[in-house]
Amino acid sequence: MNAVEEYLRGTQERAVDSLCDLLRIPSIATDAARRDDITAAAGWVRDYLAGIGGSVEIWPTAGWPAVFAEFRARESAASTVLVYGHYDVQPTGELSRWTSPPFEPRVDSTGRIYARGAADNKGQFFLQVRAVEAWMKTLGAPPVNVKFLIEGEEEIGSPNLPPLIRDRRERLRCDLVIVSDTPLWRANRPAISLGTRGITGLEVKVTGPNRDLHSGIFGGSAPNPIAVLCRMLARLHDNANRVAVPGFYDDVQPIPDDLRAEWRALEPDIQHEAAEIGCPFTGEQGYSTLERRWLRPTLEFNGITGGFQGAGSNTIVPATASAKITCRLVPDQDPDRIQSLLADFLRSIAPPAVKVELSLRKSGARPYSIDPAHPALRAAGKVLEDVYGVRPVRVREGLSLPILPMFKELLAADTVLLGFCDPGCNAHSFDEFFDSRDLLRGSMAAARFLAQVREALR
Amino acid sequence: MNAVEEYLRGTQERAVDSLCDLLRIPSIATDAARRDDITAAAGWVRDYLAGIGGSVEIWPTAGWPAVFAEFRARESAASTVLVYGHYDVQPTGELSRWTSPPFEPRVDSTGRIYARGAADNKGQFFLQVRAVEAWMKTLGAPPVNVKFLIEGEEEIGSPNLPPLIRDRRERLRCDLVIVSDTPLWRANRPAISLGTRGITGLEVKVTGPNRDLHSGIFGGSAPNPIAVLCRMLARLHDNANRVAVPGFYDDVQPIPDDLRAEWRALEPDIQHEAAEIGCPFTGEQGYSTLERRWLRPTLEFNGITGGFQGAGSNTIVPATASAKITCRLVPDQDPDRIQSLLADFLRSIAPPAVKVELSLRKSGARPYSIDPAHPALRAAGKVLEDVYGVRPVRVREGLSLPILPMFKELLAADTVLLGFCDPGCNAHSFDEFFDSRDLLRGSMAAARFLAQVREALR
Repeated sequence: MNAVEEYLRGTQERAVDSLCDLLRIPSIATDAARRDDITAAAGWVRDYLAGIGGSVEIWPTAGWPAVFAEFRARESAASTVLVYGHYDVQPTGELSRWTSPPFEPRVDSTGRIYARGAADNKGQFFLQVRAVEAWMKTLGAPPVNVKFLIEGEEEIGSPNLPPLIRDRRERLRCDLVIVSDTPLWRANRPAISLGTRGITGLEVKVTGPNRDLHSGIFGGSAPNPIAVLCRMLARLHDNANRVAVPGFYDDVQPIPDDLRAEWRALEPDIQHEAAEIGCPFTGEQGYSTLERRWLRPTLEFNGITGGFQGAGSNTIVPATASAKITCRLVPDQDPDRIQSLLADFLRSIAPPAVKVELSLRKSGARPYSIDPAHPALRAAGKVLEDVYGVRPVRVREGLSLPILPMFKELLAADTVLLGFCDPGCNAHSFDEFFDSRDLLRGSMAAARFLAQVREALR
Repeated sequence: MNAVEEYLRGTQERAVDSLCDLLRIPSIATDAARRDDITAAAGWVRDYLAGIGGSVEIWPTAGWPAVFAEFRARESAASTVLVYGHYDVQPTGELSRWTSPPFEPRVDSTGRIYARGAADNKGQFFLQVRAVEAWMKTLGAPPVNVKFLIEGEEEIGSPNLPPLIRDRRERLRCDLVIVSDTPLWRANRPAISLGTRGITGLEVKVTGPNRDLHSGIFGGSAPNPIAVLCRMLARLHDNANRVAVPGFYDDVQPIPDDLRAEWRALEPDIQHEAAEIGCPFTGEQGYSTLERRWLRPTLEFNGITGGFQGAGSNTIVPATASAKITCRLVPDQDPDRIQSLLADFLRSIAPPAVKVELSLRKSGARPYSIDPAHPALRAAGKVLEDVYGVRPVRVREGLSLPILPMFKELLAADTVLLGFCDPGCNAHSFDEFFDSRDLLRGSMAAARFLAQVREALR
């Protein structure tokens, strides 16, 4: 173990450089024009894994390819873990909001690496790669068999991963999945995660007239799609900020009392976030902030557009208006059922004078939970406490990792979330960063976990 | 009169070519980058007016310049009319929606001239220019003194026109203003207009978090500005499609019974428009379509924007959402008062968790009415009946011409609206057109009106 950790410490500077090389590739999966960048990112991952002694393959899909690698333990009866990650990244949003360009990584004086994808997920899957690299370069093999599956479509909901996993089920067989794609509880304080929220969504488009009309000539006598859309969207929540779609809460499980108590004790820890994001916390009446994030479902508007968007004014009654909606789901909500309920409700409240079209998001995800008594969770808790010097807290994730319920269903394997990014790392927003110190601590924890998990899964 | 009309017929082909030259200049006033185009358009107007014998000046303003010209009648005691128009045009909107490029004029087989600004207002002020040209080229002088004021900021609400008119009041002195910026009642059937609606507006911007947040991490616990904006906008109308801003209707005058009766008789004439715009008429309960357009005020959403706008999805709680709102006003609503009422109401319904910022539109316009018994209106009615062979109908305009109340206030002159574009001419939308036959008939009517008005104003 000492040699492994020495290796990680001794090669940390080079590790940061390598990660920056990967971060320079703008592998945005939502953008079809990024084919070359996606290919370059997948190639980078393939080459790195091969370079540290893995047996590596590019697995094509109907969309962007995945990278698969295997590292065998010496012991033939060793257990097998599968590390899942993704090399694709979110779109950048408005470039002017970034302090430095999103695809020109910048390491500040505190060691933070700023770039799109630094935390989500390039930096985080890379620390798992580094853990295996350390075992390979010092002892020649990891303590358990390690497989990597690094895909390129996570940020678009992994549409081609289910068939890939189904087709490659034998190659992917494992006893446990490890994913580093979640945050620390707070800087220097790790977390043990009990699960993730699911997701579903749709886009709603309202069409009134077949073209933009002069609001002087027609104003007051034709349906205004923005007005219609706003009235429809305003009906999706009630005054208590509960989702007002009939049936939405039918399958929602109550929050266990022990978790409610633990989480309420954590609330003071997150009060500073309100100042950081510049607005007070709000949400569904009757729940604490962490309950709202972790075990209450949501209906959020991600974008809205309609009519004249430029500077100045253009006095029109616009032809169309549309909005993007996603729901975060909790056990035991089903993404398809919630999507249907939402679609049915929107159709039911659409006024007759307009046309309402719905584009259903194809890539839903179920919520996921791991048994709090799972031995791998205990092993993870010990490792995190050893590396960070403090007991991890029990949390859930508000975000969705579609892959977790998928692995449970297709490989019968549970997933341990070993997350190391700062909770304020700006994933999906401007100035995303990953702290290079967490790259090091994370790689050390990941390396130890491989040894611990050998015992836990025996 | 015969020589004048012969001239117009004989030079009509060249007139279409000249108009197309002007239409090629993309003089979009809302776009600060268009300085050269604006200058070119103003120069074109100046050169044309000088070329037909006018004494012409460019009048600079704090914004885009205006063109002023004078043509003197032989009779020293002759009355004076002022022709007002504008050489600036609306933005094009999405270029892909145009059948042919908006600044490459296309004349179709029926004689329609397609281009941005063809109807609003280049083609329409040009027919007034043509009328004076015909008098000048045949008889050497018009029957009354004619002044032209062709400005470059109408589509942005003429912000610099009031000081210009105040400063140049003596030069602009006149007995009557003539404006061609309104439509025919329908193709081949002219209209006599009794007035215009006013306008005011504002932009409302809601800010929640200070940056886009990951909807997985923060979703459900932070205010969503799109949700807040939609709920606020949804409260601006009631279920009867009345504007729900307190005090909004306080100063609205009831529609006179004779006009209600006349306008209800015109309703069958406009039923085809619902098919053309592809949606049924809707609006304030208790009023006919024409009443809604002409003598009822409106509150319209011209544009809305917030969060992720691109293809695919970006699961954020956005930082901001905003909407552009304009109100059309009727006698005796005051634009400043309505703007204040709207702003106050929006502030009063803004929830405390978000920041609501209002940008007040600076260039409001009052509604305008001319006395139905004004002698110039009778003269206009006779001329239109002579040229079109059918009695014009009494209408109002739903649109706003800020210049009309301004001339009344600053020059004590009423305005006659002599409009010749097709009511379906797509002003402010895609595929705007002006029929070259109406360019000819309009110029003939305008030429006759100059003779008629000499008697009427005596």
